[in-house]
Amino acid sequence: MSAKPRISKGTRDFLPADVQKREYMFGVMRSVFRKYGYQPIETPSFELTSTLMGKYGEEGDRLIFKILNSGEKLKKADVQALENNKLPKFANSISEKALRYDLTVPFARFVVQHQNELSFPFKRFQIQPVWRSDRPQHGRYQEFTQCDVDVVGSDSLLYEVECIQIFDEVLSCLKLPGFSIKMNNRKILSGIAEISGADDFLVTIVTAIDKLDKIGEKGVLDELKQKLVPDSAINLLKPLLSFNGTNEEKMKLMEDFLEDSEVGMEGIQELQKVLGHVGKLGLQRGRLEFDITLARGLNYYTGAIFEVAADDVKMGSICGGGRYDDLTAQFGLKDVSGIGISFGADRIFDVLNELDLFPSSTESNISYLLLNFGGEDMESSLELAQNIRAKGVDCELYPSKAKIQKQFKYADTRNARFVILIGEDERNSASITLKNMESGTQEKISLKDFLDRL
Amino acid sequence: MSAKPRISKGTRDFLPADVQKREYMFGVMRSVFRKYGYQPIETPSFELTSTLMGKYGEEGDRLIFKILNSGEKLKKADVQALENNKLPKFANSISEKALRYDLTVPFARFVVQHQNELSFPFKRFQIQPVWRSDRPQHGRYQEFTQCDVDVVGSDSLLYEVECIQIFDEVLSCLKLPGFSIKMNNRKILSGIAEISGADDFLVTIVTAIDKLDKIGEKGVLDELKQKLVPDSAINLLKPLLSFNGTNEEKMKLMEDFLEDSEVGMEGIQELQKVLGHVGKLGLQRGRLEFDITLARGLNYYTGAIFEVAADDVKMGSICGGGRYDDLTAQFGLKDVSGIGISFGADRIFDVLNELDLFPSSTESNISYLLLNFGGEDMESSLELAQNIRAKGVDCELYPSKAKIQKQFKYADTRNARFVILIGEDERNSASITLKNMESGTQEKISLKDFLDRL
Repeated sequence: MSAKPRISKGTRDFLPADVQKREYMFGVMRSVFRKYGYQPIETPSFELTSTLMGKYGEEGDRLIFKILNSGEKLKKADVQALENNKLPKFANSISEKALRYDLTVPFARFVVQHQNELSFPFKRFQIQPVWRSDRPQHGRYQEFTQCDVDVVGSDSLLYEVECIQIFDEVLSCLKLPGFSIKMNNRKILSGIAEISGADDFLVTIVTAIDKLDKIGEKGVLDELKQKLVPDSAINLLKPLLSFNGTNEEKMKLMEDFLEDSEVGMEGIQELQKVLGHVGKLGLQRGRLEFDITLARGLNYYTGAIFEVAADDVKMGSICGGGRYDDLTAQFGLKDVSGIGISFGADRIFDVLNELDLFPSSTESNISYLLLNFGGEDMESSLELAQNIRAKGVDCELYPSKAKIQKQFKYADTRNARFVILIGEDERNSASITLKNMESGTQEKISLKDFLDRL
Repeated sequence: MSAKPRISKGTRDFLPADVQKREYMFGVMRSVFRKYGYQPIETPSFELTSTLMGKYGEEGDRLIFKILNSGEKLKKADVQALENNKLPKFANSISEKALRYDLTVPFARFVVQHQNELSFPFKRFQIQPVWRSDRPQHGRYQEFTQCDVDVVGSDSLLYEVECIQIFDEVLSCLKLPGFSIKMNNRKILSGIAEISGADDFLVTIVTAIDKLDKIGEKGVLDELKQKLVPDSAINLLKPLLSFNGTNEEKMKLMEDFLEDSEVGMEGIQELQKVLGHVGKLGLQRGRLEFDITLARGLNYYTGAIFEVAADDVKMGSICGGGRYDDLTAQFGLKDVSGIGISFGADRIFDVLNELDLFPSSTESNISYLLLNFGGEDMESSLELAQNIRAKGVDCELYPSKAKIQKQFKYADTRNARFVILIGEDERNSASITLKNMESGTQEKISLKDFLDRL
């Protein structure tokens, strides 16, 4: 019956200190989301396979964890499919449910299913784990938490402004010293392809531009050539890649560039309105940057695109998001525009750790540890423990009359701030001996004074 | 691509009002657990199948959700096992991971795996979902949340006292008007079997006694006869079943009855010590009851056994627990005594709902909804929204210049406490019109006064 215990690859145990840090981080997010009028929802950990499959592309489908049917249902296994090496078909014959792959598709399903119970625009946030059968590697897990904020049922640009404010407020509350909120617009990208006379190459161009950070300007141009984008288009695109400047200068450049593209100018105008509002309202610690080369998730987003990166750490993006126009259509509810942003909890956690930004209150410790000397001394300590807790303060009584060294060692490993000793002497004088574990100082004070100052 | 959306049977979506109620309930639990020095941990949603299988009995094994292996690994399907109708063997050939069935076995695995990082006695709480492929029916779900509190590494009876205090404090904080904390001891049950001269029938006797609530005294006696428990033993047991009285009277009865059983008297002494401490400390709203017929999970518990039932509702037990002596042995760490209790979150939620005990702060609403009249009025409202949030108060600006009736309707469905109107008039006088949505009254006040009184 004995086996050396281990966990499944790509999953994690969280020890108390990490749970407390994570709860602090999620707590900050929740309180900001609520301040902006977003409400929490939760969806089941597993959905019908049919709800999830086909929504994330071929690669995504492959990474969805499927749950094996129970009992007699296994008899329906399609052995022929297995023999013909049609593994997905075989899998479907013995599985009807699958673990949540992200929070977006379940949210779309939720909105359509509960549309008559919700008021629109519907603003929700959701903080729950998701599962992906990615090959486990450093910093990539098979189980991780997503924190999503979405509003559906309105195409108002005020929500673009709100998303930027939420990025700014969450990360500022978490004390991140500086970060850039990069913004672009899918319509601007469409305009660029149109003006370049390379409409058919939109996906190619965007995919290449998206790699600018990694492969540099030359890399992007090479890729465009390789993918047969016409030289005339490449020559037009070239100056956009290398242009550096303020948001206003970039905007001016793009206004001139996109002058003859209706969709492109729409994107410019949307961007200008959002920048205008945010400029007036101001941000706390974030910098809003118009980034022509930002292109994430092209097939999904239809308007604004966001990405956030922290200064001073090598971490890639820590948040993302954008506007989508037809998320719920796949479940039968059409023409519902929405915008959503997502906080990368694991990356933000790593950034906060690296920059040492977790408050000391998240440390795993206990305020008071009461030593146990047995008999009547123990009775007095037990009673005091109850009185300390009645004041809302945490404390713990050592469970047995062990050697005092052993009890102090426990107080150390538990990171106790104070140790309380009640012996015969203290009992007779209705007092306690209080030892400050940080300074090492010790004082004898009356029980009453101690409880009064808690 | 369009499909009528639904969720998998036995799972639930939680809408905002329910999430908020659940968060309130879990928040109360967490704060009490912390006050008693318990620390939060989290374990992965899925474990290696080998970690879980064989720990819950045959029925339990059957109810564990298994996760299908991905990709090429499916080729290892044991088709022969399938053809021979050896379904578990077939399942094991294509599955290596399984969803958490409870929090106890993962906790045992955690303790053994991390034993060098923990200080003992190790006090932890854990609030996470678990999954069971039970047939979905009223009030029974395939995904539900468990809330467990355990301490391992000490056999001190002070932890029995602590468990009772935690039951009492959590349920009192949740405003439950009254509840009974039933307590028994496995050693007393062993003693009863011994004294009855029916040692071999311990399991039979306990199983029958456990049904007293459902099948009555006569039912229990019939079952004992049917299972061939000797008449002499049944005659000895009979008075125990029907005896009603105070804890002291019951204790006296059992002391006399068990006089000649060493293990039985050990149980009595343990119980007396715990009752003594709790008697001195007092309880808030709970009643501690010695219940000779309480027998849950016999094979698991080795000392104290607990069960909690709420007054005034038909709900069965809402909490349970007890002392166990060898939980971690199955993972190779022997002689670690522990005690654990569990709060039935779904049942407690239902009790609080039925007795209308959720505070109004858990209602889904928003403090201020700002109407949107477009243009400069909107700009002023946007700025005010920012100022309200800077005071830590939640608010929301209607996203577009819709008809005022429509905006008020949204305020209604969002359960807004106040609506704020800023038109030209208000702008020119640096004031706002504030409408109390409950009373229907409306006042015009200066911006400054409004912000000052937030």
